[in-house]
Amino acid sequence: MKADTAPPTAREELITLKHGAGGRAMRRLIEETLAQGFTSDVVDGFGLAAMDDGAALRVGDRWLVVTTDSHVVHPIFFPGGDIGRLAIAGTVNDLAMMGVTEPLGLTCAVVVEEGFRRSDLDRIQRSMRETCREAGVTVLTGDTKVMGRGELDGVVINTTGVGFTDYLVRDAGLEPGDRIVLTGPIGDHGIALMAARRGFDLDADLRSDVAPLNLVIRAALAAAPGAISAMKDPTRGGVASALHEMASKSGVGIGIEEAAVPLTTVVRSAAEMLGLDPFHIANEGKAIIGVRPDAVDRVMAALVSNPLAASAAIVGRCTAERAGTVILDTGLGRRLLAEPEGEPLPRIC
Amino acid sequence: MKADTAPPTAREELITLKHGAGGRAMRRLIEETLAQGFTSDVVDGFGLAAMDDGAALRVGDRWLVVTTDSHVVHPIFFPGGDIGRLAIAGTVNDLAMMGVTEPLGLTCAVVVEEGFRRSDLDRIQRSMRETCREAGVTVLTGDTKVMGRGELDGVVINTTGVGFTDYLVRDAGLEPGDRIVLTGPIGDHGIALMAARRGFDLDADLRSDVAPLNLVIRAALAAAPGAISAMKDPTRGGVASALHEMASKSGVGIGIEEAAVPLTTVVRSAAEMLGLDPFHIANEGKAIIGVRPDAVDRVMAALVSNPLAASAAIVGRCTAERAGTVILDTGLGRRLLAEPEGEPLPRIC
Repeated sequence: MKADTAPPTAREELITLKHGAGGRAMRRLIEETLAQGFTSDVVDGFGLAAMDDGAALRVGDRWLVVTTDSHVVHPIFFPGGDIGRLAIAGTVNDLAMMGVTEPLGLTCAVVVEEGFRRSDLDRIQRSMRETCREAGVTVLTGDTKVMGRGELDGVVINTTGVGFTDYLVRDAGLEPGDRIVLTGPIGDHGIALMAARRGFDLDADLRSDVAPLNLVIRAALAAAPGAISAMKDPTRGGVASALHEMASKSGVGIGIEEAAVPLTTVVRSAAEMLGLDPFHIANEGKAIIGVRPDAVDRVMAALVSNPLAASAAIVGRCTAERAGTVILDTGLGRRLLAEPEGEPLPRIC
Repeated sequence: MKADTAPPTAREELITLKHGAGGRAMRRLIEETLAQGFTSDVVDGFGLAAMDDGAALRVGDRWLVVTTDSHVVHPIFFPGGDIGRLAIAGTVNDLAMMGVTEPLGLTCAVVVEEGFRRSDLDRIQRSMRETCREAGVTVLTGDTKVMGRGELDGVVINTTGVGFTDYLVRDAGLEPGDRIVLTGPIGDHGIALMAARRGFDLDADLRSDVAPLNLVIRAALAAAPGAISAMKDPTRGGVASALHEMASKSGVGIGIEEAAVPLTTVVRSAAEMLGLDPFHIANEGKAIIGVRPDAVDRVMAALVSNPLAASAAIVGRCTAERAGTVILDTGLGRRLLAEPEGEPLPRIC
């Protein structure tokens, strides 16, 4: 009984913010602790050991995909969105990245602090409902817990999504020659949150990109059946973390042309001012898509016709050489885009 | 942006601990806020509006059941269990109550406070793994978030379960004449937690009943195919809350013989000392089962042969009269067993 009350000794290993930051430290924690013993349990599918955005199980001739995320974003209302929109879009996007664009639905479990405003809960719920409508999904069931004052900073929302797909996409499917497509400018979510936290009033255009991507992904999949080899949404840890994971799991090298990567002037300026690298910053409405070279034009045409991916760009290609690494061509030279230790901003999603 | 920082005014409605306590206050919050707008979304199944332990969707000729729970129990290690065992058993049991006794699997999303002991996280994970093994289930995928020191009291674990069943059981299926079976003594979980919090050293036998019930429920369902009309696990709000919900949704009256309700001496004494009614206290390894009268002996035989339900008892029956109410026959007279406002103990699960 003493274990959770006695103060830790200096030699004990403690959890740090980096363990939740979507980078190397988190991956290690999951591999060494949370996924232990579950690695070989899924026989006909891909479970925890695959460390994908979700799990996939063979059911008849289809795949049932399940994905979960708890949302702890701070502040809960931010430019361009709020925790409700994020909770719906985040899970819709994780499903979409695996090929599920018409989910069966989501679950929604809310943990709220005593003394939280009922009106704020109403506002969050309306935002969830509107985002559901936008994505054509619904919340199937939920759970509500209340923690005492001071035991939780505001509200935590878990959403779990389930859905079927005939065509399973994984983050490990890249092959040499595949093109890397990015569906729009990077860093908007993280920079908008950071600016809001510091009270900056930089620009009305500095808004989170948080949005459900399932409909635009559906169009991309339909435009080039079988030609999308891998997808991942660059959330915590940003584009650098996502690309590194895709390269590493797929066993390919990825070369990125920095000049081709969409980035708004306002995010570029704000990131410089804050001393942050946009490649490390979270996005909540973007996808990295690996495409077979002969299909990339069709996929691009499908993407740019949707406002959520109007600035989509081909930003790189996969090579057989330098497997597991990501090389950034800056125009002045080439450098290794390393896997970040973690997202630099805590509670980004 | 101000909404979550400005102090609330005296007239604003705030969330209280009762809103998470599993009784009337929580039901109202969900109906009035959280389920709003999702009530009619599920066409071929039972979603949020049904307010069951989970949602059920028709997939081919089977039902896909999805259920979610966030676990905030305090203390995280308690006599008879810990938050890890609770997180697995809680969701396994919610699935079992709807007829899913061989789940496809669970998701597990952990939110942990900065400074939490790595060794405690290891211990919780081991407990989850052991409980999974006991229930024959696995964790398919997960999520990890870290909140800053003082932003979260320890750890919150969400588990969401998915599984198929041919025979869907709901909490609304009771009919007049059905017998009410309780699988064992009541109040163990809540009383054990309360005693642990107050530092009582009442008795080595005062332990939480937290356990996965899917295997014993599978045996009960197999013993009397089609004859189990309703199930519910009496967690937050206790047996009183669960019976009230079953009576109300099924449109029947329920009469309970108090003398028949299993209750250990140690829980009875502790509840008296703490001034608590065992009917209002949470259980985490018990089920209330509605059974057609001609099948009750077969169901009882299946239950008592399993150690988790060795003290199962027939405690009451359903009537067409007094629909929606629960009447307790105390032996000295009859009284209404009202729906509690909520579980008397915060963070019980």
